[in-house]
Amino acid sequence: MGMTAVAATPQVRPVEREDRDRIHSIVVATGHFSQIEADTAMELVDASLAGGEASGYLTYVLETPPGTVHGYVCVGPTPLTEGTFDLYWVAVDPAAQGRGYGRRLVATAEEEVRRRNGRLVLIETSSQEIYRPTVGFYESAGYRLVARIPNFYRPGDDKLVFVRDLVPI
Amino acid sequence: MGMTAVAATPQVRPVEREDRDRIHSIVVATGHFSQIEADTAMELVDASLAGGEASGYLTYVLETPPGTVHGYVCVGPTPLTEGTFDLYWVAVDPAAQGRGYGRRLVATAEEEVRRRNGRLVLIETSSQEIYRPTVGFYESAGYRLVARIPNFYRPGDDKLVFVRDLVPI
Repeated sequence: MGMTAVAATPQVRPVEREDRDRIHSIVVATGHFSQIEADTAMELVDASLAGGEASGYLTYVLETPPGTVHGYVCVGPTPLTEGTFDLYWVAVDPAAQGRGYGRRLVATAEEEVRRRNGRLVLIETSSQEIYRPTVGFYESAGYRLVARIPNFYRPGDDKLVFVRDLVPI
Repeated sequence: MGMTAVAATPQVRPVEREDRDRIHSIVVATGHFSQIEADTAMELVDASLAGGEASGYLTYVLETPPGTVHGYVCVGPTPLTEGTFDLYWVAVDPAAQGRGYGRRLVATAEEEVRRRNGRLVLIETSSQEIYRPTVGFYESAGYRLVARIPNFYRPGDDKLVFVRDLVPI
């Protein structure tokens, strides 16, 4: 008899208060977000922590090994819709990218949406060059570009809207 | 010498607390909005009344003669953008439609956006039949359809996004 070494499987679990600063570090580390965008990201996390699901925001973190958070996702029902959800934010520590963590976080968000009878997940992003890998990531995760709003963020920076239709389980 | 009868010119002014119930009646009277949509409309009015411009919502009412409000508009800067504004809500009492009040309210909203260095105004609406006159109204006011998100509100009910580029003054 002996101990068996088991490769740690990443776990995705609801956010806890202790995760807040780590999430903030990850958002900053991605280098994709301005100060005001990072603040907005944290507002959603804080709403989620303070109000739980009633806040309209569901936040999950991915950790492996237990205690080490590498990324998070924030999703919630889109106001005034029936069954549409916004995937507001997904971020993985650059030091931990390329391991499928982002995909795993998006999959968890989609499961939670399905569990709440969601049928459509929306992701909005910018047309700027810096987001091209992000766009590739969404497309490989099954999202398709359905709309573009020219000059939305600033002149020359369009809003892209990606959508995934969820198949009922 | 004598009194000269002057046709009252509609005035558009910032919302005041006394306008709240009248605005609610107008929203209900249009018959276009569900209970939850009407509640959302009033949340924006209340935010506007409580927090002024810092709330992110600017609300104006049209009255003629003084004391009689016929419609209102609510507009505000779109978060995380530079110079884009959302025209969140515009409603005119059905009993006072066809007099150009809606157009006047939209024009006021646009002036206020320009005054704040806004360059783009966005209007979102539903593809449902009941909104066809609304869509015609936006188009005649210079808005063009730039995006459609299929099945956004519910299956078969798309979100339409209209945009107007503001010419600098």
